[in-house]
Amino acid sequence: MVTTMRNVALLLAYDGGAYHGWQAQKNAVSVSRTLEEAISGALGHPVRLTGCGRTDAGVHAEYYVANFRTDSHIPPERMPYAFLPWLPKDISVYKAAYVPEAFHAVYSSVRKAYTYRVYPGKIPDPFYRGRAYFYPYGRLDVERMRRAAAHMIGTHDFSAMRTLGSNVKTTVRTLYAIEIAEGEKTLSIQMAANGFLYNMARTIAGTLLYVSEGKIDPDSIPDVLASGDRRRAGPNIPPEGLAMTGVWYREPLFD
Amino acid sequence: MVTTMRNVALLLAYDGGAYHGWQAQKNAVSVSRTLEEAISGALGHPVRLTGCGRTDAGVHAEYYVANFRTDSHIPPERMPYAFLPWLPKDISVYKAAYVPEAFHAVYSSVRKAYTYRVYPGKIPDPFYRGRAYFYPYGRLDVERMRRAAAHMIGTHDFSAMRTLGSNVKTTVRTLYAIEIAEGEKTLSIQMAANGFLYNMARTIAGTLLYVSEGKIDPDSIPDVLASGDRRRAGPNIPPEGLAMTGVWYREPLFD
Repeated sequence: MVTTMRNVALLLAYDGGAYHGWQAQKNAVSVSRTLEEAISGALGHPVRLTGCGRTDAGVHAEYYVANFRTDSHIPPERMPYAFLPWLPKDISVYKAAYVPEAFHAVYSSVRKAYTYRVYPGKIPDPFYRGRAYFYPYGRLDVERMRRAAAHMIGTHDFSAMRTLGSNVKTTVRTLYAIEIAEGEKTLSIQMAANGFLYNMARTIAGTLLYVSEGKIDPDSIPDVLASGDRRRAGPNIPPEGLAMTGVWYREPLFD
Repeated sequence: MVTTMRNVALLLAYDGGAYHGWQAQKNAVSVSRTLEEAISGALGHPVRLTGCGRTDAGVHAEYYVANFRTDSHIPPERMPYAFLPWLPKDISVYKAAYVPEAFHAVYSSVRKAYTYRVYPGKIPDPFYRGRAYFYPYGRLDVERMRRAAAHMIGTHDFSAMRTLGSNVKTTVRTLYAIEIAEGEKTLSIQMAANGFLYNMARTIAGTLLYVSEGKIDPDSIPDVLASGDRRRAGPNIPPEGLAMTGVWYREPLFD
């Protein structure tokens, strides 16, 4: 009997608060392992997931893509419903689709987006706990932040705004857009790039807060980037404010 | 030495997911007991809180008022900061103020507001879990719901839309307004009344869902109310969709 292994892509979302990141060391609970166990249970065979990025402990994903191989006869459009009873309530699989054999959730991606949310206020809001960075240090200077952000757009070596710790061929990335949106209760820093270095999204956000606080001059950002000196940028601020909000491929994966 | 007991009102919010309601039986964890322990710790003497309503297990409060008596010399405007380190992250005290001796969080209230949130969709969203009622039963007919809601506005005996279980002098309440707002992901049923009977807000919301589903005719609402027959209204739908969103008194309590 010939079994055909098919490559399946999933669109999913998760609240990262209870997990040690997408992928974790062996004894820690990770999103990928939790998903693998649920999918294995639903399909009746072990699966190995490839995720579109290694989100850190506590980081969320509102739009995340992963892929795995299966010879299951369950049609992909039924898979989200088949997985539902096996999944914890903080992880959801919205869509599934067959993708070409060569598709790889990380290597095939051409653009990713992250949003960092800040909750400015004197007293934390219980409904934003674990979802936004509580910031009791005063008013944010959005105009200053926007001026600094404009200097970050484009192709740069982002060595000054990342944490060492993963092997990458190059530290050059292209930041396509960075928008600072004022919501009713939160300030959102929305970033899109062809890829993000380790901790780059949180360090960009931390740098913009330092700019707001007057610790970094907005017009010094080109120098900070050119220096490659991590100490000249702002801090890697807490994970709960960060969510992956998009990932794009050359072709649309889902209907 | 003469100590002066002062009456203090608090403005607070809580995520009710982890609690057996505002007030609970002795061995269950309640919001009021958790707050009383925190405030007692911060002020150094036992306190007894009076809340503006007995929210059920799992029901939230985005705007809630409680009062208590203290002879503490901590100025009320400092109290939210004094309580902060004693409180769990799912309860916040935003404001405190001295109020007249006769003030009572329930009996002095003249108007209350609740919002019931429904998340319509095929797959639940992890970021709305415990915050909205997941509704996978199809599209909601908002126009039909609005027609039914219009019949509920006014002064009626709401016996048909509550659960027996608390002693009340009258089951007549005045519903001032009911708005159905379509958000990006949720549908919100916003209700304001001079008071709500036990489970009345959730039963109004459940009745509107039955109207959407065609199980109740929107124009039969006057008859349903006049009948006083609980079986003719819709179900008491789950607590996680409900939040208290406002309570008003004759005079503003806080700056």
